[in-house]
Amino acid sequence: MSPPRAPSPAELGRAIVARLDELAQISDEPGKITRLTLSPSHRRAVDRTTEWMHEAGMTTRLDALGTLIGEYPGASAGAPHLLIGSHLDSVRDAGRFDGTLGVVAAIEIVRHLQQSGKRLPFGITVLAFGDEEGVRFLSTLTGSRAVAGQFDPKILDERDEDGISRREALRDFGCPEGDASADWQGQNALGFLELHIEQGPVLEAENRPLGVVTAIQGVTRGSCRVTGKAGHAGTTPMVLRQDALAAASAMILAIEGIARDTTGLVATIGQLRVPGGAVNTIPGHVEFSLDFRSESDTLRHEAGLRIQAAIADIARNRRVEAKLYLGYEAPAAQCDGGLRQLMAEAAEATIDKPVRLLSSGAGHDAMSFRGRIPFGMMFVRSRDGLSHHPDEFSSEADIGLAAATLFRTVLALAERHDELN
Amino acid sequence: MSPPRAPSPAELGRAIVARLDELAQISDEPGKITRLTLSPSHRRAVDRTTEWMHEAGMTTRLDALGTLIGEYPGASAGAPHLLIGSHLDSVRDAGRFDGTLGVVAAIEIVRHLQQSGKRLPFGITVLAFGDEEGVRFLSTLTGSRAVAGQFDPKILDERDEDGISRREALRDFGCPEGDASADWQGQNALGFLELHIEQGPVLEAENRPLGVVTAIQGVTRGSCRVTGKAGHAGTTPMVLRQDALAAASAMILAIEGIARDTTGLVATIGQLRVPGGAVNTIPGHVEFSLDFRSESDTLRHEAGLRIQAAIADIARNRRVEAKLYLGYEAPAAQCDGGLRQLMAEAAEATIDKPVRLLSSGAGHDAMSFRGRIPFGMMFVRSRDGLSHHPDEFSSEADIGLAAATLFRTVLALAERHDELN
Repeated sequence: MSPPRAPSPAELGRAIVARLDELAQISDEPGKITRLTLSPSHRRAVDRTTEWMHEAGMTTRLDALGTLIGEYPGASAGAPHLLIGSHLDSVRDAGRFDGTLGVVAAIEIVRHLQQSGKRLPFGITVLAFGDEEGVRFLSTLTGSRAVAGQFDPKILDERDEDGISRREALRDFGCPEGDASADWQGQNALGFLELHIEQGPVLEAENRPLGVVTAIQGVTRGSCRVTGKAGHAGTTPMVLRQDALAAASAMILAIEGIARDTTGLVATIGQLRVPGGAVNTIPGHVEFSLDFRSESDTLRHEAGLRIQAAIADIARNRRVEAKLYLGYEAPAAQCDGGLRQLMAEAAEATIDKPVRLLSSGAGHDAMSFRGRIPFGMMFVRSRDGLSHHPDEFSSEADIGLAAATLFRTVLALAERHDELN
Repeated sequence: MSPPRAPSPAELGRAIVARLDELAQISDEPGKITRLTLSPSHRRAVDRTTEWMHEAGMTTRLDALGTLIGEYPGASAGAPHLLIGSHLDSVRDAGRFDGTLGVVAAIEIVRHLQQSGKRLPFGITVLAFGDEEGVRFLSTLTGSRAVAGQFDPKILDERDEDGISRREALRDFGCPEGDASADWQGQNALGFLELHIEQGPVLEAENRPLGVVTAIQGVTRGSCRVTGKAGHAGTTPMVLRQDALAAASAMILAIEGIARDTTGLVATIGQLRVPGGAVNTIPGHVEFSLDFRSESDTLRHEAGLRIQAAIADIARNRRVEAKLYLGYEAPAAQCDGGLRQLMAEAAEATIDKPVRLLSSGAGHDAMSFRGRIPFGMMFVRSRDGLSHHPDEFSSEADIGLAAATLFRTVLALAERHDELN
C-alpha cells in the first residue's frame, strides 16, 4: 500500500483549531465553556461531532454510556481496528482543548485518509467519550471503561446534585439501553491512541511543542493527623512546646524533600487545617492531605514507606502523635512500548529533533485500557501548564505538529501491519 | 513595729482554697464557672467578697467601673497605701484560680493583720477588678486602668453581643456614675502587688511551687500571606513548583528556629489557612498568623526584623511572594526591681531555696500600672500549664507557700518603710 498524501502540520493545526473554536461555543453557561456529561451542551457537541465524522466517511453510533463511536472501515472486511480518541465533556468554566483536541484530531486524520481515497489494513474507530471529568456523577471514565469491556452496572444508580440518576440522564440523552461492554471486541482492537494537552508545565519549560507519554502515573492519596498539645502562645517556652503545626511543617518539608530527591516522584500537600486555631494558641491539632504519584508503582510504594518513616521520626523528635492514613491508591498504567516507539519516531520525523518522553500526572481515558489492549498517548505543550481554566491554551502550530505526528504514527502502524501480514 | 504573727503556709492555703471553692459556686452557667464582667454572678461574687473584706476589717466601695475596693487603714491618718489584688471575672467555662486567687489571698493577708491587731506604716487597699478577661466587651483591663488613672470614656459605649452597652451594664451593676480615674492618688500609692497562677508550664516543668515575675512580655501580632502558583499535583514536577504551603512551612520552621535560638523570645503560628485547597492541587495561597513576645522590647523588635528577613529569603528562594503585616503591638511592662527583690527574698525565706524568676507571657491587671506606680507579681505553679479550662489547678500547698511569700513581702515592705521613715 502506498501512503496517502500527508497533510502539513500547518494545515492540520488550522483545521483542528477551527473545530475546537466551534466546539467551544457549545456550552450550558453563556460566556463560559461548561459541558458536563450528558448535559444539553454535551448532546449538541455529540451532534456536531457526528456530522464531522460523517463528512470524514465514518459510520457513527452512540453506545449505552454516551460514547460517540465513528468507524472508518479497513481495506478488508473483518480487518482489525485501531481506536483513537478522547472526550467531549468538560469541567465547569473549562478551557477549549482538554479532551476535544483528541477527538477532533482523530477525525481530521480520518478525513485526510478518506480524501486520499485510501484504506488502511485496519479500520479506524474514533471514540468521543463523554464522562472523563467526573464532575456530575461520582464515578468517572465510565465511557472508556465500558468500551474497554469493564462496565459496572452500579454506576447507573449514581445521582447528580439535582437527584437525576445516570440511568435517567443516559435515557434522556438518547443512548440505547443495555450493557455497553457488550460491544467490546478486544481481540479485534490493535490498540488505543490518545492525543491530549499536557495540563502541566514540562514541555513549555523545555521549549518543546510535544511529548510522548511513557505511562499514566499511579497515585496514593491519604491524610495525616498530627496531635500535639495546645498551649498559651505567651506562657509556654519554646522548649516545652508540642506544636502540631510546627511538626506538620517539618513533615511537609520532609515529604517535599523525598519527592525532590526521587526522580519520577511527585508529592503534594494540598490541604491543611488547624481546627480551632487562634492567634495566641499553640496548635494542638493539624490535619493535612497527601497525594503522591509515580509512573513506577514500586517507586511509589517505597516512597510511601519513606514518607511514613519520616513522619514517625519527626513526631517522635517533637513529642507529637502523627497518624497517616493512605486510603486511596490507583496503580500506574504503562503505555505500550511498541506504540511509544512508533510515536517517538513519528514525532522526531515531524519536529526533526529528539522527542521528550514524559509521564502523565493526570488521569486520562487511555488508562481505562490498562491490561486490555496496548495504548499510547501524546501530549501537546500547554501554555503556563494551565488546564481546567478559561485561559487553557495550546498553539495552532503545536497542535499541527502533534496531529501530524499522530498521522505519521497511524501510517507507520499500517506499514508495520503490512510487513507482518 | 514588731511583726504580727505570720500564719503558716498550710493555714493560708487551706483558708484561701476554701474561699476559692466558694467563689467557684458563683456562676451564670450551671455546672461550669462562667462569670463574665458585670454579670449577675459577678455581682454575687462582689457581694460575697465584700463580706470577706468587712470580716477582715476593711471598709469597702465599688468604683464607677465595677472594681471592688477594700481599704485597711495604716498606722497613721494619711499614710500611703499598698495596693494588692487581681480580678473576679472569668472566661466562659473557666477554672477556679485565675484572678480569684489574687483577690482572696490579699484579703486573707489583711485578715491576719487585723487578727493580730497590727497596723502597718501604710494602709492596704485590696482591689478586686472585674474586667480582666475581655470576653464580654471589646476593651479589657478597664477596671485596673481606671484605678491607675487611665479611664477612657469611650469604653462606656462598647456593647456586648446582646446590644447592652457597658454604661448600662455598669448602672445595672450598681456602680456609681462618674470618672473612676478621679479616685487615682498615685502619689499616695506605694505600689501594686498581684499574685496569680502561672497559666503556663515552666514552674511545673522545674518542680517549683512559685516564681517571681520579672516583666509582662510585650507582644507583636500579625499575619503573613504567601502567594505561589496553584498547579496540578500530578502534572507539575517538583522543580517547577511554586508551592505556597511548602514555602509557608519553611517560614514556620524558620520563625520557630529564631525563637528557639533567642533566649527570652517566644513565637507562635496559631492559625494557618489554605484557601480553596484541594488534595490534588498545589497550594497557590496560604495565610498564617504570627504572635511573638518578649520581656525585652528591643529583643522583640530585633526578632521582628529577623523574622521579616527570613520570610523574604525563603520567598525569594522558592519564587513565591510573601507579605507580612505586623499590625498589633503592645510594649513590655517591667516589674519594679525593688519589689521583685523583696518578693524573691520573701520567697526564698519561705521555700528555703533560690526562687525562679520568669516573665509573664500573658497579660494581667498589673500591667495597667505600667509607668504609673511600681508593681510586682508572683506566680503559683499551674498543673499541666493549663488555664481558662475547668481542669485549671494549683495545689493548696503551693497556694499556701505563695500567700506566705506575699505576706512576708508585705512585712518586709513595712520594715523597709519604717527604716526609711
